[in-house]
Amino acid sequence: MSEHPLDAIFHPRSVAIVGLSSSPTARPTGFLAGLLDQGFPRDRIYPVNPRATEVAGLPCYPTVLDCPDPVDHVISIIPRTGAADLLAQCIQKRVRSVHFFTAGFSEVGDPALAAAERAMVKAARAAGVRLIGPNCMGLYVPSAHLAFSAGFPKEPGHVFALSQSGVNASAIIDGLSARGVRLSKCVSFGNAADLAAPELIGYAAADPESQVVVAYLESVRDGRALFEAIRRCARVKPVVLLKGGITEAGARAARSHTGSLAGSAAVFEALCRQTGALHAETMEELHDLTVALTTQLRTVAGPRTVLMGNGGGFSVLSADALAREGLDLPELNEATQAVLREHVPEAGNSIRNPIDAAFVDGPRQRVAEIVLATVAEAPGFDLVVTTADGPDALPPPRAPGDAPPPPSTLPVQPPQLVVAATFADVQDRTGRPLALVRRTRDHNPADGFTVQTYRRGVAVFPSVARAARAVALILRWRCQREGLPPLV
Amino acid sequence: MSEHPLDAIFHPRSVAIVGLSSSPTARPTGFLAGLLDQGFPRDRIYPVNPRATEVAGLPCYPTVLDCPDPVDHVISIIPRTGAADLLAQCIQKRVRSVHFFTAGFSEVGDPALAAAERAMVKAARAAGVRLIGPNCMGLYVPSAHLAFSAGFPKEPGHVFALSQSGVNASAIIDGLSARGVRLSKCVSFGNAADLAAPELIGYAAADPESQVVVAYLESVRDGRALFEAIRRCARVKPVVLLKGGITEAGARAARSHTGSLAGSAAVFEALCRQTGALHAETMEELHDLTVALTTQLRTVAGPRTVLMGNGGGFSVLSADALAREGLDLPELNEATQAVLREHVPEAGNSIRNPIDAAFVDGPRQRVAEIVLATVAEAPGFDLVVTTADGPDALPPPRAPGDAPPPPSTLPVQPPQLVVAATFADVQDRTGRPLALVRRTRDHNPADGFTVQTYRRGVAVFPSVARAARAVALILRWRCQREGLPPLV
Repeated sequence: MSEHPLDAIFHPRSVAIVGLSSSPTARPTGFLAGLLDQGFPRDRIYPVNPRATEVAGLPCYPTVLDCPDPVDHVISIIPRTGAADLLAQCIQKRVRSVHFFTAGFSEVGDPALAAAERAMVKAARAAGVRLIGPNCMGLYVPSAHLAFSAGFPKEPGHVFALSQSGVNASAIIDGLSARGVRLSKCVSFGNAADLAAPELIGYAAADPESQVVVAYLESVRDGRALFEAIRRCARVKPVVLLKGGITEAGARAARSHTGSLAGSAAVFEALCRQTGALHAETMEELHDLTVALTTQLRTVAGPRTVLMGNGGGFSVLSADALAREGLDLPELNEATQAVLREHVPEAGNSIRNPIDAAFVDGPRQRVAEIVLATVAEAPGFDLVVTTADGPDALPPPRAPGDAPPPPSTLPVQPPQLVVAATFADVQDRTGRPLALVRRTRDHNPADGFTVQTYRRGVAVFPSVARAARAVALILRWRCQREGLPPLV
Repeated sequence: MSEHPLDAIFHPRSVAIVGLSSSPTARPTGFLAGLLDQGFPRDRIYPVNPRATEVAGLPCYPTVLDCPDPVDHVISIIPRTGAADLLAQCIQKRVRSVHFFTAGFSEVGDPALAAAERAMVKAARAAGVRLIGPNCMGLYVPSAHLAFSAGFPKEPGHVFALSQSGVNASAIIDGLSARGVRLSKCVSFGNAADLAAPELIGYAAADPESQVVVAYLESVRDGRALFEAIRRCARVKPVVLLKGGITEAGARAARSHTGSLAGSAAVFEALCRQTGALHAETMEELHDLTVALTTQLRTVAGPRTVLMGNGGGFSVLSADALAREGLDLPELNEATQAVLREHVPEAGNSIRNPIDAAFVDGPRQRVAEIVLATVAEAPGFDLVVTTADGPDALPPPRAPGDAPPPPSTLPVQPPQLVVAATFADVQDRTGRPLALVRRTRDHNPADGFTVQTYRRGVAVFPSVARAARAVALILRWRCQREGLPPLV
């Protein structure tokens, strides 16, 4: 663990939640439910409400000052009008950090409220207290048993996420979790009155628990500091940036959301190019790039693609989708075609590239395995894109401490596990990156097979077009990084 | 019913399937399973196999000539080498149509096999027998109890689909079914040796059961006839075209798939522009356009959009997505904002447009309903895009004759039905088209709420970006159609 000053903020030993509902019998919701779901020690959670002595079975205190020592972190869900007084109490209590879910400050567009926000930051900084927000969801740190919502994975991972939007922080966590990706930390930091993107990205760069950094940003208030932080971070780990408010309409929405003055698309594109960051245009691209960057696909060195798919018309549309992103589908050489013809005698033209072979249950499965192993070693190619159809039945793997699956979850299907292992074995043995495209009848990319395969280091995408886009963005990024030190 | 000569092909009274597995006890699969699943009369299905007397409980005949009279339609799943002899028997038996699932003809790239295909067409035409294929899946006609696979909806609808690819025919049917769309007919016609796109589109144009025509095409062999057929059809009903092989790599794949010589993107784009057809670039766009064209969204007259969404950061990204497709988000006028402020007192800037209001369970629901009713009547707008979050629990509605839902399906949730009705009521009352964006935690667009809402005439999309794209394509199409007679 590094000695970065923000480390303590991400690992509080105790948390007070100020403004919880006063009903002693209510089921925990929101922030309290998040902490309990993650297994934060119950005796270090301090509900604060002057009109209650107990909340959801926990002793409740009238003010922060009445809580047992020490209170490291405070979550404020009270209305705006009480925020300044609460901060004064927190300073007196010598807490480390205050997270204001409380909104109604600079994002409203009223100069008086913006001034109130600045005054709180000034007071906090003078006392050495850090503010998160206001107008945000705060912290998700599975290794510290922190979460701002129930249902997030308990298992820590290696992706650091920061988001100026709470909804988009959840979209990052949910979208990545469904694909099997786990996070080291996520911070939703709203108006960024105190803790802002440059400092958080600097922390992520130094954090040994974080190997990839993804960010949803709205403001570029301190452009120079942000540029420098991204540039430094991108030298040592991949950084994916999704910028909200990149169009005029989006920028207007951003102003009323976090009071951000958004920059233009061209400016942001230049920032990514010059810093070596990856630019995601949509939330889905952020998810896809994170999958690619945390698997072997991160090493893809060029556009020459072998495509294995089930069905001629699907292959035709897939070839179009790959070509639209600038990927090539050169013909396999005669030697490789000869090997394939031995195993797929009825092949005809369908073994040149694209190749008609399917990972589906049944006897064709073995043929597909041989074809994959053959084309993964074919000279002159940079990656293999292959479909992986089949039953939607495999439940996601469980981490120690996760709740048992609901009764409706179907049992693990060993054939699918074998297929997941086959993909990983071929990729490990040949060193050639694979991109799997998961086609299920219900179009749900978040099934257990996807997660099991990803866990073995193979990137899985919900469509050929999205796989192709991710590969194209990775290739562009690798060009931009040329001359920089190699990533670990 | 019109008297079009192809009507009889789409409504056979009896079907022989030649080349079925000879095991009398095997469970029906493939084409036989499709017919039985649709409820085609068992005593009009004739399995043909010289080595069996019974297949899946049905009497089996040694040849087509041995089947009871009349045999209207024959499905061939025998190897290529027997195809010509089978056709000779079919001619002798005076069948109307032969569907060759059998492949291995012109698509292989061998001149001798292409000549064999041409010879079969010549023989069939001389005898007045129509060929479907070869190398295709054939017919899905729910009103005639025909299907090439089990699991397709039994309920007929008003969308006519044609596809040169069997896999893409299934992708059209499955993808549309999941969204609630039902088909009048679908024909997978492979190499198009006899029945080809121009004639099929001409039939679709005249078919009173079909209101929208969607096509996956690979070849433009008879360009002038195709152009004329599309132009005539597009004058009377919307036509959506998805062209495979539009890039060089895709064209190479198409050659080995259906032996098609594909045209360039520019040529095809010009064809769509000049004929008044809609050009879908991907299968997802074909689905989205079909949803849009079969709901009120078909009438959208301009780009001025009100966006209702849950969550500031989501609204920001959504505004960017709309702007990327050329849609506008003008501010609501002061009078409308004043009405909204009465109902959303904490609104701040979030009622200008986009508007932060959510259709979720709970007390906020009622507020969202009022907001929707208000903005749908705001002057100066062309459509409302709104999210519809919530539980994923509503099962799709069942048609009479559909199998009962599996035991794992959750019961209908009345609140969601109420929400579906609310959207439809607002759209019907104001005449302003809605586009719903369904956000579920598992990213599955195919849930019951989606289907229930679509059934009430409201278009539902899996993301804002896809809704925006569909609207942009509809607007472009409406411009192209100016001067043409209005559609029914």
